[in-house]
Amino acid sequence: MMSAEDRARHDDGDNRTRRFDRRRFLTAGAGAAGAAAVALSGRAARAEKAGPPEVPDWTKQLGPGVGDRPYGTPSPFEKNTVRRTVDWLTASKESSVSFTPIAEQLGIITPSGLHFERHHAGRAEIDPKQHRLVMHGLVEREMIFTVEDIRRFPAVSVVRFIECPANGGMEWRGAQLERCQYVRGMISCSEWTGVPLRTLLRETGLKSTATWMLAEGADAAAMTRSIPIQKVLDDAMVCYGQNGEAIRPEQGYPLRLLLPGWEGNVSVKWLRRLEFGDQPWHTREETSKYTDLMPDGKAREFTWFMEANSVVTFPSPERPFEGKGFYEMTGFAWSGMGKIKRVDVTIDGGRNWTTARLHEPVFTKALTRWSIPFRWNGEPLLVMSRAQDETDYVQPSIAELRKVRGVNSIYHNNSMLTWHVKASGEVENVQLR
Amino acid sequence: MMSAEDRARHDDGDNRTRRFDRRRFLTAGAGAAGAAAVALSGRAARAEKAGPPEVPDWTKQLGPGVGDRPYGTPSPFEKNTVRRTVDWLTASKESSVSFTPIAEQLGIITPSGLHFERHHAGRAEIDPKQHRLVMHGLVEREMIFTVEDIRRFPAVSVVRFIECPANGGMEWRGAQLERCQYVRGMISCSEWTGVPLRTLLRETGLKSTATWMLAEGADAAAMTRSIPIQKVLDDAMVCYGQNGEAIRPEQGYPLRLLLPGWEGNVSVKWLRRLEFGDQPWHTREETSKYTDLMPDGKAREFTWFMEANSVVTFPSPERPFEGKGFYEMTGFAWSGMGKIKRVDVTIDGGRNWTTARLHEPVFTKALTRWSIPFRWNGEPLLVMSRAQDETDYVQPSIAELRKVRGVNSIYHNNSMLTWHVKASGEVENVQLR
Repeated sequence: MMSAEDRARHDDGDNRTRRFDRRRFLTAGAGAAGAAAVALSGRAARAEKAGPPEVPDWTKQLGPGVGDRPYGTPSPFEKNTVRRTVDWLTASKESSVSFTPIAEQLGIITPSGLHFERHHAGRAEIDPKQHRLVMHGLVEREMIFTVEDIRRFPAVSVVRFIECPANGGMEWRGAQLERCQYVRGMISCSEWTGVPLRTLLRETGLKSTATWMLAEGADAAAMTRSIPIQKVLDDAMVCYGQNGEAIRPEQGYPLRLLLPGWEGNVSVKWLRRLEFGDQPWHTREETSKYTDLMPDGKAREFTWFMEANSVVTFPSPERPFEGKGFYEMTGFAWSGMGKIKRVDVTIDGGRNWTTARLHEPVFTKALTRWSIPFRWNGEPLLVMSRAQDETDYVQPSIAELRKVRGVNSIYHNNSMLTWHVKASGEVENVQLR
Repeated sequence: MMSAEDRARHDDGDNRTRRFDRRRFLTAGAGAAGAAAVALSGRAARAEKAGPPEVPDWTKQLGPGVGDRPYGTPSPFEKNTVRRTVDWLTASKESSVSFTPIAEQLGIITPSGLHFERHHAGRAEIDPKQHRLVMHGLVEREMIFTVEDIRRFPAVSVVRFIECPANGGMEWRGAQLERCQYVRGMISCSEWTGVPLRTLLRETGLKSTATWMLAEGADAAAMTRSIPIQKVLDDAMVCYGQNGEAIRPEQGYPLRLLLPGWEGNVSVKWLRRLEFGDQPWHTREETSKYTDLMPDGKAREFTWFMEANSVVTFPSPERPFEGKGFYEMTGFAWSGMGKIKRVDVTIDGGRNWTTARLHEPVFTKALTRWSIPFRWNGEPLLVMSRAQDETDYVQPSIAELRKVRGVNSIYHNNSMLTWHVKASGEVENVQLR
């Protein structure tokens, strides 16, 4: 890890030593990539290829004109940046997951086409004109809303993550998969647009006896969860927008609930019904699933919060070091309890830690990008990141988590990961205890 | 427009008058949409349909499982939310534009598939492994970078708009097109990821005599522009990321320049060359095009700044009022000079103005979402919005602009638009002078 002094130099453009080292990094990196960042002048200018540069076809020919792609798609050269599934994880594709390629993600907004999926009965494909949202139970006026009705209310947009509580569950059971996409890819972050639930409750009124809300989806699983009224009135939203357009079918088109910072399954997709009552419903999805079995045989119900978590996306199993030299290590941190306050990184398995830079903007309950400059000399490393949120909660080790939770439940594994960087630059997923 | 008192009530959930009025809005809106937001209890519950509700197919059948869409796309029911072109505007599709559907856009991030296009020789389709960026001229060390080299530098992500200076140009020439997509749709806003140019210049060094930079694209037009070094060192970036993934081919894959707040064509796409010199190059694209012809026959060169601008996206020609009642008027404001400070809205052609609410986050040189609650009683309206930025510049009328600029140049028309809302709720694009 760079010293504070090194980093100060790194941030100061006029230091010749640093400039020299940065030259070294470029040469190293270019060599590995099969190309050369070299001086153009004199002989060095022809290091890459003798003679004048070849003019590529795309400079010699007109490209396709406008209008052929009313809705654009990524370059065909980016075809490896896709959601991936694991065949052996679930009994069917309809009740299964796909993972976001977090190692390839840039910035903090997950492209909608790459948002992770978790369906219980497949992707519901809904005609928005036929869809309705019912609000009933302990309200003053039971009401049915069309999607257009919901879109007439004053709108808000917020950047928030959604994470499945089973994110990291395979690791908890001992798997050490060689992609951070599989290890932590059940998280995505979007700009969500919709109506605060408290705004809708001004329409229906809310009886003073109402302490819980049931949210139900229109998919064939009728995914149903009980939510305390405190959360409903705090920051719950009924959303129709994701990253500037209508929510994607995989994320609940045309309407989904959003409960920021809570485990993803309570942000019910394809939302069709909100019932208000005075006790929880103890539905299938909060008894047979999404409970945490403790060592004494009792199950914890309603463990909604996604605690502070982080992942190193570079270097990572799918993004090794390509030779010695300068790199910027980077990754994500997030917390369901608020903003990320600090991220520390170690390269020696936890003996020494250095604080990373948090990239602006840092939104509450959103992916936060961090990075830290690093010069690799080819030695093996044990790289870990550790997030701390504004409540001062610090991300634990897996040993610390197991001490309080036992080993039964696969949910809510927010323990630190460890990447073993080998002398070759390749990265292996290992676990420190 | 609501009074300040009305709006305070509107924001306060416990006022029965407001609640009653909001009921009225819902009933009105639902009626127009062919559906009913009605009380569920008693007879009202069956206003929509007698008998128990019909269960739709998507609740009775499993939907498609995960893995069938490694890269997702919008719902087929959203097929009208697309980029559109105007056949008569340009001689060819290769040197032409497509427009972002800003009336349908939610939040502030334009989906990458809907980012407006402006090509001069079609969309270059580049193999990133073959692409190079050359930096030469008045630098200490001339260098060639691969895309992987550029990705090794410390990265930053910023939310910024890109706007074509011809946005509004058809209006300037007297067209009154019936879509705000055509009237102001040559603007989009993305989270851009890349490397500040000043970081790259630490690698190459910059000679003290360098005062200008030439940026050149790898497309068949070899789009080329001269940029003063001040802007280069201020906030110019070489970008490879857009909204969390690689830049789309239409926006310059694999590398583009970003000059925040300046007219879009200087943010050269498919960037292949940066030359540093001591005077501007006066290229084709800054002499025969992208200059502003003044009344005295002289042409202004280098009119880079996109001044404060705004648009009402609802109501608008493509999004009329559907019956009387409560609505939230909304739209965008933006400025190439910094943050939007204030947006005012009139419904009577400019006699009275009310200040709109700006939605967080308000980023510099980014689309800013504004909204204002409104109760429509069916009377005709003349709706306009007026943006003010942090430099205190106020968006002008078209008459004010013509007084200083004459009528020749179609570029940089940031004048206020006027929507005529008819008694039917339909919206017509008219121009007040």
